[in-house]
Amino acid sequence: MSATSNSNNKSQVGIIMGSKSDLNIMQDAADILKELGVSFEMTVVSAHRTPERMFEYAKSASDRGLKVIIAGAGGAAHLPGMVASITQLPVIGVPVKSSNSIDGWDSILSILQMPNGIPVATVALNAAKNAGILAAQILGTSDTELSQRLLNYKEELKQKVEESAREMES
Amino acid sequence: MSATSNSNNKSQVGIIMGSKSDLNIMQDAADILKELGVSFEMTVVSAHRTPERMFEYAKSASDRGLKVIIAGAGGAAHLPGMVASITQLPVIGVPVKSSNSIDGWDSILSILQMPNGIPVATVALNAAKNAGILAAQILGTSDTELSQRLLNYKEELKQKVEESAREMES
Amino acid sequence: MSATSNSNNKSQVGIIMGSKSDLNIMQDAADILKELGVSFEMTVVSAHRTPERMFEYAKSASDRGLKVIIAGAGGAAHLPGMVASITQLPVIGVPVKSSNSIDGWDSILSILQMPNGIPVATVALNAAKNAGILAAQILGTSDTELSQRLLNYKEELKQKVEESAREMES
Amino acid sequence: MSATSNSNNKSQVGIIMGSKSDLNIMQDAADILKELGVSFEMTVVSAHRTPERMFEYAKSASDRGLKVIIAGAGGAAHLPGMVASITQLPVIGVPVKSSNSIDGWDSILSILQMPNGIPVATVALNAAKNAGILAAQILGTSDTELSQRLLNYKEELKQKVEESAREMES
Amino acid sequence: MSATSNSNNKSQVGIIMGSKSDLNIMQDAADILKELGVSFEMTVVSAHRTPERMFEYAKSASDRGLKVIIAGAGGAAHLPGMVASITQLPVIGVPVKSSNSIDGWDSILSILQMPNGIPVATVALNAAKNAGILAAQILGTSDTELSQRLLNYKEELKQKVEESAREMES
Amino acid sequence: MSATSNSNNKSQVGIIMGSKSDLNIMQDAADILKELGVSFEMTVVSAHRTPERMFEYAKSASDRGLKVIIAGAGGAAHLPGMVASITQLPVIGVPVKSSNSIDGWDSILSILQMPNGIPVATVALNAAKNAGILAAQILGTSDTELSQRLLNYKEELKQKVEESAREMES
Amino acid sequence: MSATSNSNNKSQVGIIMGSKSDLNIMQDAADILKELGVSFEMTVVSAHRTPERMFEYAKSASDRGLKVIIAGAGGAAHLPGMVASITQLPVIGVPVKSSNSIDGWDSILSILQMPNGIPVATVALNAAKNAGILAAQILGTSDTELSQRLLNYKEELKQKVEESAREMES
Amino acid sequence: MSATSNSNNKSQVGIIMGSKSDLNIMQDAADILKELGVSFEMTVVSAHRTPERMFEYAKSASDRGLKVIIAGAGGAAHLPGMVASITQLPVIGVPVKSSNSIDGWDSILSILQMPNGIPVATVALNAAKNAGILAAQILGTSDTELSQRLLNYKEELKQKVEESAREMES
Repeated sequence: MSATSNSNNKSQVGIIMGSKSDLNIMQDAADILKELGVSFEMTVVSAHRTPERMFEYAKSASDRGLKVIIAGAGGAAHLPGMVASITQLPVIGVPVKSSNSIDGWDSILSILQMPNGIPVATVALNAAKNAGILAAQILGTSDTELSQRLLNYKEELKQKVEESAREMES
Repeated sequence: MSATSNSNNKSQVGIIMGSKSDLNIMQDAADILKELGVSFEMTVVSAHRTPERMFEYAKSASDRGLKVIIAGAGGAAHLPGMVASITQLPVIGVPVKSSNSIDGWDSILSILQMPNGIPVATVALNAAKNAGILAAQILGTSDTELSQRLLNYKEELKQKVEESAREMES
Repeated sequence: MSATSNSNNKSQVGIIMGSKSDLNIMQDAADILKELGVSFEMTVVSAHRTPERMFEYAKSASDRGLKVIIAGAGGAAHLPGMVASITQLPVIGVPVKSSNSIDGWDSILSILQMPNGIPVATVALNAAKNAGILAAQILGTSDTELSQRLLNYKEELKQKVEESAREMES
Repeated sequence: MSATSNSNNKSQVGIIMGSKSDLNIMQDAADILKELGVSFEMTVVSAHRTPERMFEYAKSASDRGLKVIIAGAGGAAHLPGMVASITQLPVIGVPVKSSNSIDGWDSILSILQMPNGIPVATVALNAAKNAGILAAQILGTSDTELSQRLLNYKEELKQKVEESAREMES
Repeated sequence: MSATSNSNNKSQVGIIMGSKSDLNIMQDAADILKELGVSFEMTVVSAHRTPERMFEYAKSASDRGLKVIIAGAGGAAHLPGMVASITQLPVIGVPVKSSNSIDGWDSILSILQMPNGIPVATVALNAAKNAGILAAQILGTSDTELSQRLLNYKEELKQKVEESAREMES
Repeated sequence: MSATSNSNNKSQVGIIMGSKSDLNIMQDAADILKELGVSFEMTVVSAHRTPERMFEYAKSASDRGLKVIIAGAGGAAHLPGMVASITQLPVIGVPVKSSNSIDGWDSILSILQMPNGIPVATVALNAAKNAGILAAQILGTSDTELSQRLLNYKEELKQKVEESAREMES
Repeated sequence: MSATSNSNNKSQVGIIMGSKSDLNIMQDAADILKELGVSFEMTVVSAHRTPERMFEYAKSASDRGLKVIIAGAGGAAHLPGMVASITQLPVIGVPVKSSNSIDGWDSILSILQMPNGIPVATVALNAAKNAGILAAQILGTSDTELSQRLLNYKEELKQKVEESAREMES
Repeated sequence: MSATSNSNNKSQVGIIMGSKSDLNIMQDAADILKELGVSFEMTVVSAHRTPERMFEYAKSASDRGLKVIIAGAGGAAHLPGMVASITQLPVIGVPVKSSNSIDGWDSILSILQMPNGIPVATVALNAAKNAGILAAQILGTSDTELSQRLLNYKEELKQKVEESAREMES
């Protein structure tokens, strides 16, 4: 697993994770964003071990040009919710089934069950790929070409299933 | 409980729910969107009892000008995921703790655990208000004034807490 | 693992699954139907990646002569419930503990907890074999010979246990 | 709560429950079967307090002309599975959230998680109505008129949703 | 794994299990009973595949001289509860985490949550050894020598811990 | 709620509970023991607030003539397991869904999941009545008359069900 | 419910809560600290609505003379863990079963499952009283008189149980 | 895995565990205490197999100079709570996911859900390292140098994250 980071001058999406060990999951977000032609940056920000760094990251995100933040964390996963408490940007949370997680339930509930006023857009356990697609969908609401690429992506998914179907039926 | 529906000519957000009985929860999404100055429409679409209607709703959503869809449902809650399977718009799912739900776990897992390729932005159980805020945040990525109104909203939340603090400390 | 599909001219049972990767589980349904002399067809239909295909499959099922549909899926498993929403045929749901499932709970609850009006006959986690037997029992309600073969099958189960008992007691 | 029992000479569906206190749930099965024109009988059979009675009921069910058995029980709910172990008829299990049940989880898992060879067609917690509809669907596989009545029932469900939608949109 | 069965003329404890595959767990009950000098018999009895055999086993148990029955089963584990419904002997249930079990929850709840009137003395998941000790404790209420052997066994447990403690402290 | 305690000179069963507030549940054990003609004593013993008292109670239990101990507790329920660690008598644990319990799961797991060597005979949540019956079954292994009374009790349970059945069928 | 706040010049314990609505639970911590003669302050600090305030509170806590912080929160409860990430003082977390909590599981897991390096001393659901006692025990490690008052408190608990026992036995 | 025990003349922290097999987890507590310069002792004490030893250990702990006790156990984990019932010292509980544990839920709930009056400071599943840090934080409330070492430790955690971040961004 090689850590790939893509820090464009003007990234639209910020991918952050609580620990370097989350990268094997979070890389999927980067890969699909690259495939969909969306610029992004990726780094490690720990809510618990670098709280000031997290504050600065979230506080400056909008001014630095970020439009969406994807945050992945495991166990008592406070990173997505805390970032959402600081920025007005949409924050997508990826519950990671890390080694210190109880079958993923702690990660999911810590990210999903945010109080009124501070939403986190939560995706499935370990579903960093879907976090990337959701970020693209959000940007696609004001980017017709990206919206079209998402339609094409949906078409590809469909064709792969139809191919599987033909194989199984033959 | 009065059902308030606001069907603007050009709504940006579509709020749908699986059953009229979900309205007491889903109204919160409408209320906060109104407060934040975001146009919306609201109706009942059942994945299980009106599958064709759901298809048409999701298929035509983007062409009708919708930018985001908020879908609430309870129990085996297929509405958000099925709508997301048809449209490329971002879909926000609200797990509703309806009368036929097992403490909300079925609603949450049916909405959250979508397969790779088809994300649903899931919010907390019954958190229709947060769904509305998230929809506004999504639209705010390309609407500076709305983004500013979201910052103001955050400021109000803060002031209410500080007021509570002063009361408790006095 | 070889994908075996048996598309008779006049299949009585349709076996569908959300992904080719579910075949290692769903094959058990095909095997027991073959053993019990029930004709069937088997293919891939994804609720989320091929929603139109799912609609057509379910809509035409009865007219094509199918009597029962067995649908297997994992995670947020919408396939069985959505098919049941479209056809009046009995639909048997197999919760699959797929790689994106949380210990199977999401698959079970997404399939089992259907709202009033749209039942899915749910079997145990990964229990495609039992789905096949249940399909045969349903057809056996109007097929005396099949009903007799099911009684014979029960007798075989009994004899295997009695053999185990003799071994252990000896 | 009035206990309504309908013991036709030639009932097609047998509705049984572990305790008289389950009747307020199980009555829904009877009501929808009556509405769909399916003959049925209804009584109390306890796996744990009347094991012989359960054996006789299940053993004689097919010969007495029953085609489908609906069995409801709560807690450590053994009735549906034990009946299924004795008869070759399809058995529909209704997990009842009785007073001695832990939020319904025990009822669900005791009924759903049957071993290979002995399926129980499990419906949602307390979903006796869906058990009745599923029984009708099973009989409808060899009864064209009943199958048509089920299509009409689906149509009614749809119209009620559309009416709700019109109300909310107006 | 060799299946050891010890069918004394006058066994005091009957060990039964739903499937031969449960033997690797249930053997622990036999081993500790042997160590504690309690006579026992061991065999396979399936509630679901051999319901008549189960009835006869439970019905005749007291007359054949058995004083306690240990029953192990997994998944929808009906064996302990059904045996308890037929005999007045104390029945000890061992929830087995078998391959078709959801992390053992189904086995535990199916055995533990018996209705009023029909208790099953449930031990921990896979704890066949404790089932054996409990059976000995039950017999020890009227057998002073066995009661003394149980005290000796407790003493041995204590000494092993003290030895571990000395090792760790040194 | 009146606390009824029956401290015979020679009680066979000791009923203890962690708090006076558990009495409304634990009284059921006393009532059924009285009905079955088994002598008992009942008192409050808290593992956490009166650990010495618990030790003395458990240490002296056998010498005072007790044959079985029934211990009820809620939350982190250590009373049954700690008593079992001190005495060689069979200990029956009643998980109580007390006000500080999380839906009863903590009570159940704290009592059920005892380590190898120290069993607790666990009954269903709040099932003090079944604890009483189990205690009687244990004593019945060496008391033919009590064993017969238990058979009579089973017969009464059966007759009540048959009566319910006749009512519902009429 | 009256909010009582006690802001001594030199408080040893800081009690904070995510929302004014948590006061009916958190007041118990204040009450027992008062009873045990420990000085404290109490206020509202929301991790999500007032992140800067939380930072300042935690950052200055040690310098202001606080020795222990008790933090209560519900749902995705990030307050205790975030405070612990900023201060080196021991932080006691009280999971509150607030209205937006799923039976308390989210509150518990969000507080308990902290990553290596940043512990939170978690107490039972809603157990603010125990949080107060634990804070006193921590201060008692260097305060002999407080340690003695804690022993007296234990003695009182014991005497109340013994009184209950005498009542029940009489 | 080598068992390292450090029995200083005047240990401040006592580390105990229910079984030698818990050492591979509990060693982490010893290692971090050594790193932070806190004296400790470590041994095996089983609540269930050596209840007297547990009593003596807890009863004498304060007099022997211990200030904090760290207790680790799995399954029905009574050790931390029982020790807390006997001593007025703060007790830190480490839920161990031992081989007889159901995914750790039993260990967590048995330790966390203590009744009012007897707190246990519970840390995350298997988080013995955090138990050690918490013990140091408790001692740090009256030891300025230790408090400073804890601040240094927090600084190291921060620097490791920043290093990871630089790597990923480069």
